[in-house]
Amino acid sequence: MAKTQIAIISTGGTIEKTYSEMDGILHNQFSVLDVMLARLQLEGVELVRVPLMKKDSLDLTTEHMTLIAQTAGSMAQTHDGVVIVHGTDRLSETGERCVELLSTPPVPIVLTGAMKPYMMRNTDAMQNLTESLLAVQLLPPGIYCAIHNKVLQFPGVSKDRARGTFV
Amino acid sequence: MAKTQIAIISTGGTIEKTYSEMDGILHNQFSVLDVMLARLQLEGVELVRVPLMKKDSLDLTTEHMTLIAQTAGSMAQTHDGVVIVHGTDRLSETGERCVELLSTPPVPIVLTGAMKPYMMRNTDAMQNLTESLLAVQLLPPGIYCAIHNKVLQFPGVSKDRARGTFV
Amino acid sequence: MAKTQIAIISTGGTIEKTYSEMDGILHNQFSVLDVMLARLQLEGVELVRVPLMKKDSLDLTTEHMTLIAQTAGSMAQTHDGVVIVHGTDRLSETGERCVELLSTPPVPIVLTGAMKPYMMRNTDAMQNLTESLLAVQLLPPGIYCAIHNKVLQFPGVSKDRARGTFV
Amino acid sequence: MAKTQIAIISTGGTIEKTYSEMDGILHNQFSVLDVMLARLQLEGVELVRVPLMKKDSLDLTTEHMTLIAQTAGSMAQTHDGVVIVHGTDRLSETGERCVELLSTPPVPIVLTGAMKPYMMRNTDAMQNLTESLLAVQLLPPGIYCAIHNKVLQFPGVSKDRARGTFV
Repeated sequence: MAKTQIAIISTGGTIEKTYSEMDGILHNQFSVLDVMLARLQLEGVELVRVPLMKKDSLDLTTEHMTLIAQTAGSMAQTHDGVVIVHGTDRLSETGERCVELLSTPPVPIVLTGAMKPYMMRNTDAMQNLTESLLAVQLLPPGIYCAIHNKVLQFPGVSKDRARGTFV
Repeated sequence: MAKTQIAIISTGGTIEKTYSEMDGILHNQFSVLDVMLARLQLEGVELVRVPLMKKDSLDLTTEHMTLIAQTAGSMAQTHDGVVIVHGTDRLSETGERCVELLSTPPVPIVLTGAMKPYMMRNTDAMQNLTESLLAVQLLPPGIYCAIHNKVLQFPGVSKDRARGTFV
Repeated sequence: MAKTQIAIISTGGTIEKTYSEMDGILHNQFSVLDVMLARLQLEGVELVRVPLMKKDSLDLTTEHMTLIAQTAGSMAQTHDGVVIVHGTDRLSETGERCVELLSTPPVPIVLTGAMKPYMMRNTDAMQNLTESLLAVQLLPPGIYCAIHNKVLQFPGVSKDRARGTFV
Repeated sequence: MAKTQIAIISTGGTIEKTYSEMDGILHNQFSVLDVMLARLQLEGVELVRVPLMKKDSLDLTTEHMTLIAQTAGSMAQTHDGVVIVHGTDRLSETGERCVELLSTPPVPIVLTGAMKPYMMRNTDAMQNLTESLLAVQLLPPGIYCAIHNKVLQFPGVSKDRARGTFV
């Protein structure tokens, strides 16, 4: 059986932040997504990596979000699904931008991210990445957020900052 | 929004094996499922734990498999989904037994397990548990196996021993 | 055989920093030293915990360093050794302050810390804590730094900021 | 300052055991010592790796133990210290064999091992390896065991099987 062809677009965000010993701060400097992917056994999907940008989502402009949505739209034409790895602070805005630009895409587009960097022991990064890579195989076409064991469909998804999750 | 009510039935298997310093062997002695669950952020499901047995699946008799299938069938009457954590060596047999006894249950029943115990650094346990707890929310009623980023529907699932996964 | 009685003074520092989901920054908010200690099998020492302060060492004043040195001096009167867990940025200054105030104490005083917080996957915290808890049993009286598989004696220890270690 | 030149002899043992998915058993098949060493920041020592054998220590014959002791003796002639990584079940016997063959060597020889394989989450392997690599720099010439935050000198060291440590 042919595996599902999935494009995975990385944009940076907390999930990929690494710690710099020199200044003691967390940065979006390296892509740790490949490290995360190497820890998973992916029998269901074949991945095409699209390393688009490495940004804290608080630094994203409207143009950045449009670029992410357009890239997801292009990938959706030629793959069975698209996963977007994104900072959680602006994830909802990019999801809504996808709805505006793409309406209903031909395949599922799933946005995910993490509240705690992969490099932290108690991270939610592996959980959310695992969920998005399964959800993209099971969902009908549409634009979604898959985080913390829950799938939400855009439009209308927002970050609940007090609880640190999406609703 | 009410969370999905999921019954999670544990039966033992490699996923829960722990190392004994005294004899240097891996045993099904303690339930480590609660440790795994505590590491996940479960916003989508509300879990009811059903600790049914603690067995290496090579030690399961036909009666044990019937008991697991019947328990899953009972739980399927009163919950939105059922997850069965099971040893991989006999997971297929228990899945087929579920099909025989339950035909199409009213809600999804998802079997999962691991090729390497949770207690090993390079385990697939968290991945498979995460996947089964998401799949049970997204799938239509039926009996499934969710392991290694792939969902397979019973009947007809088998372990590929050479590759260490399910097909 | 009676275990060696060791006082372990915690002052904060990178080693104990935890990640806040709310603001995405690393803080000295909780004491994670007890978590680290619980992961070690300590057959050689019996520990007395002295949680003195929870500070990034960049925020330490001269008064703070004097307080740490005096506390170490007091503990050195009544224990077989003293370990001080400290931020690396000012560790050398506190070590020199110990030399000024205590000259040669009756037992070894060992300062340690970490370049990367315990909560990071690739931390040096466990290594340095392990080393300091062994060094304090083997060294003659004096004031030392034990980090990165090396023991250095004060006075004259300094942080090599370019290489991220002590020389 | 020149680093201390240390020979590290690996012989197998629980510390290096890995899990085989095929038969579900822990084996001495690969050398995981290099993985462990890569996780440490070793500023104090320069290591020469001597991969002598890969054996569960229950399978060691008298000839094997003599070979280990002789190799340690040779390395002690040309290095500043020797670390022997060994299974704990027969570690005491090999230590005593070193005493018989080498009497007091010109440099410290430190035996270590682990009660739980490195590949287990709750292993004592990193602690014991860290301790032995520091102890070999601080101890006077002699034959020692460094495990669980304690250094013991041969002859007269034995494994306390009930407590899972050395006395």
